[in-house]
Amino acid sequence: MPGYTPPIADFQFLLHDVLDVQNADIPGYAELDRDFTGAILDEAGRLGTELLEPLNRTGDREGCRLTEGAVRTPDGFPAAFRTLREGGWIGLDAPEEFGGQGLPYLLNSAVTEMFSAANQAFTMYQGLTHGAISAIFAHGSDTQKALFLPRLVAGEWTGTMNLTEPQCGTDLGLLRTKAEPSGDGSYAISGEKIFISAGEHDLADNIIHLVLARIPGGPDGIRGISLFIVPKYLVNEDGSLGARNAVTCTHLEDKMGIHGNATCAMRYDGARGWLLGQEHRGMQAMFTMMNEARLGVGLQGHAQAAIAYQHAAAYARERLQGRAAGGAENPDGPADPIIVHPDIRRSLMDQRAFVEGGRALLLWGASLIDRAHRNGDAGAEALISLLTPVIKGFLTDEGFTMAVQAQQVFGGHGYIEDNPMAQFVRDARITMIYEGANGIQALDLVGRKLARDGGQQMIGFLDHVRDWAAQNDGDDETFTRTIIAPLLAAADDLQAAGLYFMKEGVKDPDNALAGSTDFLHLFGHLCLGFMWARMARAAQAALENGAPDAQTQEARLATARYYMARRLPATALHLVRIRSGAAPVMALAPGQF
Amino acid sequence: MPGYTPPIADFQFLLHDVLDVQNADIPGYAELDRDFTGAILDEAGRLGTELLEPLNRTGDREGCRLTEGAVRTPDGFPAAFRTLREGGWIGLDAPEEFGGQGLPYLLNSAVTEMFSAANQAFTMYQGLTHGAISAIFAHGSDTQKALFLPRLVAGEWTGTMNLTEPQCGTDLGLLRTKAEPSGDGSYAISGEKIFISAGEHDLADNIIHLVLARIPGGPDGIRGISLFIVPKYLVNEDGSLGARNAVTCTHLEDKMGIHGNATCAMRYDGARGWLLGQEHRGMQAMFTMMNEARLGVGLQGHAQAAIAYQHAAAYARERLQGRAAGGAENPDGPADPIIVHPDIRRSLMDQRAFVEGGRALLLWGASLIDRAHRNGDAGAEALISLLTPVIKGFLTDEGFTMAVQAQQVFGGHGYIEDNPMAQFVRDARITMIYEGANGIQALDLVGRKLARDGGQQMIGFLDHVRDWAAQNDGDDETFTRTIIAPLLAAADDLQAAGLYFMKEGVKDPDNALAGSTDFLHLFGHLCLGFMWARMARAAQAALENGAPDAQTQEARLATARYYMARRLPATALHLVRIRSGAAPVMALAPGQF
Repeated sequence: MPGYTPPIADFQFLLHDVLDVQNADIPGYAELDRDFTGAILDEAGRLGTELLEPLNRTGDREGCRLTEGAVRTPDGFPAAFRTLREGGWIGLDAPEEFGGQGLPYLLNSAVTEMFSAANQAFTMYQGLTHGAISAIFAHGSDTQKALFLPRLVAGEWTGTMNLTEPQCGTDLGLLRTKAEPSGDGSYAISGEKIFISAGEHDLADNIIHLVLARIPGGPDGIRGISLFIVPKYLVNEDGSLGARNAVTCTHLEDKMGIHGNATCAMRYDGARGWLLGQEHRGMQAMFTMMNEARLGVGLQGHAQAAIAYQHAAAYARERLQGRAAGGAENPDGPADPIIVHPDIRRSLMDQRAFVEGGRALLLWGASLIDRAHRNGDAGAEALISLLTPVIKGFLTDEGFTMAVQAQQVFGGHGYIEDNPMAQFVRDARITMIYEGANGIQALDLVGRKLARDGGQQMIGFLDHVRDWAAQNDGDDETFTRTIIAPLLAAADDLQAAGLYFMKEGVKDPDNALAGSTDFLHLFGHLCLGFMWARMARAAQAALENGAPDAQTQEARLATARYYMARRLPATALHLVRIRSGAAPVMALAPGQF
Repeated sequence: MPGYTPPIADFQFLLHDVLDVQNADIPGYAELDRDFTGAILDEAGRLGTELLEPLNRTGDREGCRLTEGAVRTPDGFPAAFRTLREGGWIGLDAPEEFGGQGLPYLLNSAVTEMFSAANQAFTMYQGLTHGAISAIFAHGSDTQKALFLPRLVAGEWTGTMNLTEPQCGTDLGLLRTKAEPSGDGSYAISGEKIFISAGEHDLADNIIHLVLARIPGGPDGIRGISLFIVPKYLVNEDGSLGARNAVTCTHLEDKMGIHGNATCAMRYDGARGWLLGQEHRGMQAMFTMMNEARLGVGLQGHAQAAIAYQHAAAYARERLQGRAAGGAENPDGPADPIIVHPDIRRSLMDQRAFVEGGRALLLWGASLIDRAHRNGDAGAEALISLLTPVIKGFLTDEGFTMAVQAQQVFGGHGYIEDNPMAQFVRDARITMIYEGANGIQALDLVGRKLARDGGQQMIGFLDHVRDWAAQNDGDDETFTRTIIAPLLAAADDLQAAGLYFMKEGVKDPDNALAGSTDFLHLFGHLCLGFMWARMARAAQAALENGAPDAQTQEARLATARYYMARRLPATALHLVRIRSGAAPVMALAPGQF
């Protein structure tokens, strides 16, 4: 079976022909010429295929093992992590002052897609470290930054997020873990945390836990939560390691997938911790990690669909079964490859249109993060804040669905663990759940992001889409009919849904909340439609300019038309559901279920 | 965690208030009074919850083990199978002349839903036996019937279907297994079969394999295939067991789910077999099993959604997290149960509407089978033939989707194998694949069932729906608006899709085939819409008659309105996709994927 093919040409097209990064006026982007991005992407792709992909099945089959508090990761994981560390990949977009490469988040996103496609469970170890770096960089004192960031950036240490407890997942107001001031500036942290990804392992010398806990005497609920740095090994002032801290992994979860990542139950028995950021402001600090983590999870869901699609396309070209309806296409063989069958082709087109469109959305989103951080652009910050739940929720729901479709192409062979398809599905499944289950993303989108400004940011997004459409609607009637018109129809559907929420949500908030998941999907489809319109325009321009890869550009145009004709019309169905309001949804009393 | 609750009241409502079985004029139905069906269903439900459900996790965790050709099923499976056998459950609907109970297939379907919900992997052993009984009953000689049926009906022996080979799944024309005449009326069967469910195990004294093979000199392709009875142990004329036959399980597949069922690779080394039915007419004989098996698989996909929904509803009532948007509903507790949140409620309503609607469709379909077999009604035979791919494809696609939604209600706890949700999803996944992957169901529906009579049978179905609507559209404006009108709109969508296929499929068959999966789903939604309309009418009648279970009947009416408002409008989206034709789907050449 052929392995993963890093989508280098697609990344280059998106970076240079669609996003035009060198002219984007974002600090650090001017240097991103085609040769430079190509070199980075090629090397990352090589590591994905040669280093990480061969460990994906190993990780799934072996899983992690817990012995006397120590976790052994699957064979090959520690060595692979060392290789990435030595290559400087852990701190690719970390600040140079702390030893990072200082590259844009954009480039890190492209690299992480490939690593994650090759091995999601493995890539989570560095993903969580990335989040810890961001949180300490944003909220740490100078001393904390100096002490922790260089080792995290170098990958000598890794990071974790400790939020969930048995009685609290989504509702962190119920959190019980305590942080008692010790009088020396440190706190004694005590409590139980569950579902802690990468909570214990053998990849690094130390693990820096970022832990939500309550300082006694603080406010109840979510306003009384603080964030703490709790190292597995205490860190001396010179950065050397001291005594083992009182934090232990007590249990490894047996999960449906991502077996190569240690999902730990952690016990804190008066472990020493240090406040990160301000007292009782832990949620604000944690959101720095969570928002970034949400984009990262959207990327993971997408990445599993991306590699599953590659396998499905390859299998469909090779597997001989049946004959084309219009007559044999492989007359010398015993049967035709199954890719001749329209329903297989439909499935592959669904997958392809999602994978390429989702990739564009992720890179565009990453460029908004860079614009927000590097240019201090409040508009970009507000837009990516609006889009974060859409990227997380839509790309993981659809990513899972597409991984399932890819598995389906294999027939019975897809259900057998000898082939990798079942693992892609099992691994993708978690992305719909962690970092805020997708229902919570929908609630965040409708209940917070949309409600807080009366939909102004959404209108801004619609204006952006419509302005683009107006500027790119030339005298090509086919382009107008097949690309621009469906895009504008979907934009109208989003606006109508937003208006419905404004009008009916005032009467009863449930009228908006009952449609929240439909709204997230409507929004997601419009985002992918917008991406496909931009890609179609760029492909058309490339063809007009005599692009050497004409067949590839034609394929992009055809896939754009597919998305517009067969996927984007889902917005109308979502609007119908939204407009049915809360009444059908809330008709039964809880006891009637 | 609360266990499975057999849906007895729902079955009784469907049998008596919706299908009105006692007045259905089908032989054997008049005896099905409420007490009788209640007694059977209660006892089956008890076996499901007390005997089979406790073994579901055991089966998943232990799986099956192969040692020197012998398969050991999970602990408890052999004893449970013995209990079912002794209770006469294996032959519940088998002919009395061969020791069966002679009950309608309808009742067997209801029983099998409960057994399958409680333990899908276990219930497959008897499901395959059921298929073997049907095939031998329909195609066997009197001697074969006398020799094999009594033991199969008694559950002393079990059956299998041997179709798939490494190079042929869907395309049985590629089949290579050989059957050489031995001169004594028997054949020597040689070849390799894969994915043989229940191919080897320790539940029964003998296993009767029904094997597709080629008699040398016969036609190539599908027309040269014959069906053989190949017992694991040869059977003497008096029914006693003789020598071990030359058939061996060489490998057990490691699968994503249904671990408790042995999925075997089988080697036939000149095993003795006897022709079942006529030479080279094996496919016709096998279709007797396959059509029944397809309905059974639709039932399995539905059953996993049914039990997953029960768990999700129970968890949503218990799990405390967050507060209702309109103010605390559990003010004395630390948080409200998550069932207060509209998006959780939406998910539960999706599941509930599917589960109850799907149950109605399965029972209606089973009654059509009975009408076809017991009354020799060609119209019923033609209708269930049309509906079979819809029931298989739609109920398994949606069943899986709903099991995933149910798992999602559990958040991270749903991804952990300590809870049963992941198993429901993993087990449900196979139902979209086996007995003809769902793309093949769609092809069967559009390429054969619809094409062979120019859509006449589909028009007959639409007439049936419209006649019902006309007869039940009274002067209740709410019922007309919320139930009848959406049903008729969906019927129009199906008709428009069929017309599109007739018109454009003539120009290019791909125009129909590219829309086949959408057509199957459009058809499935209309079927469930029709079932909900009938249930709504029956619930309304019960309320008018002062039903004692008014709350339950009100819940049915509310769920019917939910289906009409939020699920049935999907037919319009499927129609849009269908009408986009083959061009977007087939735009890329195979090499461009």
